[in-house]
Amino acid sequence: MADEVVLLDYLISMFGMRVRIALAEKGVKYEYKEEDLPNKSPLLLQMNPVHKKIPVLIHNGKPVCESAIIVQYIDEVWKDKTPLLPSDPYQRAQARFWVDFIDNKLYETGKKLYSTKGEEYEAGKKELLEIFKLLEETLGDKPFYGCDTFGFLDLCLIAFYSWFYAWETFGNFKMEAVCPKLMAWAKRCLQREAVAKTLVDQKTVYAAVLDMRKRYGWE
Amino acid sequence: MADEVVLLDYLISMFGMRVRIALAEKGVKYEYKEEDLPNKSPLLLQMNPVHKKIPVLIHNGKPVCESAIIVQYIDEVWKDKTPLLPSDPYQRAQARFWVDFIDNKLYETGKKLYSTKGEEYEAGKKELLEIFKLLEETLGDKPFYGCDTFGFLDLCLIAFYSWFYAWETFGNFKMEAVCPKLMAWAKRCLQREAVAKTLVDQKTVYAAVLDMRKRYGWE
Repeated sequence: MADEVVLLDYLISMFGMRVRIALAEKGVKYEYKEEDLPNKSPLLLQMNPVHKKIPVLIHNGKPVCESAIIVQYIDEVWKDKTPLLPSDPYQRAQARFWVDFIDNKLYETGKKLYSTKGEEYEAGKKELLEIFKLLEETLGDKPFYGCDTFGFLDLCLIAFYSWFYAWETFGNFKMEAVCPKLMAWAKRCLQREAVAKTLVDQKTVYAAVLDMRKRYGWE
Repeated sequence: MADEVVLLDYLISMFGMRVRIALAEKGVKYEYKEEDLPNKSPLLLQMNPVHKKIPVLIHNGKPVCESAIIVQYIDEVWKDKTPLLPSDPYQRAQARFWVDFIDNKLYETGKKLYSTKGEEYEAGKKELLEIFKLLEETLGDKPFYGCDTFGFLDLCLIAFYSWFYAWETFGNFKMEAVCPKLMAWAKRCLQREAVAKTLVDQKTVYAAVLDMRKRYGWE
């Protein structure tokens, strides 16, 4: 039986981009369904009743939710091409630790730069720069987080690249100055076809953020 | 080389109990080091500099942090005895989804019952009961979340059992009335030696909560 794969997603979502990069790395064909987030589809509410969030991967009718869990699922199901999780249990635990750290910190902290003002904005900016410095320190002089090869942690982090320009602009800083090694790593990741063709243009995300600021009264 | 396993932990922590149950299930011998949380040890700060939290498993000198990640690590390293993660990728993704849900919801919501008052307390109680009903619904009529056998999700959830009495007492409800099937599941889990011998007595946790309430001015 051919696999039936459907992805409920939202174009500029970094969490959705993770899943799209993973599917591209594995060469999995799928049907992409864009969600209108203010008017979520009945299918999304049915497939992810707990969180009601994208992305949701529907594989042969069965839903998998939460981007980091979906990427692990994709890696386990389509295991012959481009392994993503490291094979060593310790390296795997480290990759999971940093993905969990990113999941709990990066989006919410980055959001403060375009949705808050004053002290909250300043604290958000300070924290975001600290997060990037910590991520750069963790990379060290390795070409990829997964050492010599692009892996789970690389994939989960590079999906945020499309948002860098928006954060830089609203935060008034330059990633190149804050974390040059991380930016060199990002360029290496972008040499992969699956990454380059999936990541949404930074200016498109920036325009979407400008639009959100108007819509939610964050200006 | 014999494995050197050290656990930095705090006796009544549900996250710590998870790791202790997993080690007991696998028959792994380890050195237990109780942390004094208001005065964290230099070893804890060195081994978990990002979160500075217990539990930390130190395996042959290398730290693994975050309880759900530690349990997966233990399952992967000591893989011959009592497999915990389901072998099927879809079941594994589902187990990871619910553990993530529990991690993000249960502790923080339960805490509201003994650390807040008024509206926040009422909202916390309502949410906690909804969480338990959802967890009961997800269990359905299966003996264990891992179907016929005790697994990753069972282990990660049963570690909260020691806290049930404190939540019931401060929340003025009875788990047996809210989620009888879940309580029957808990009794099945308690028949396992690794669970029974690890879980801290509910009255000990309750006494510790009373003490916290005094110390932090939550009364």
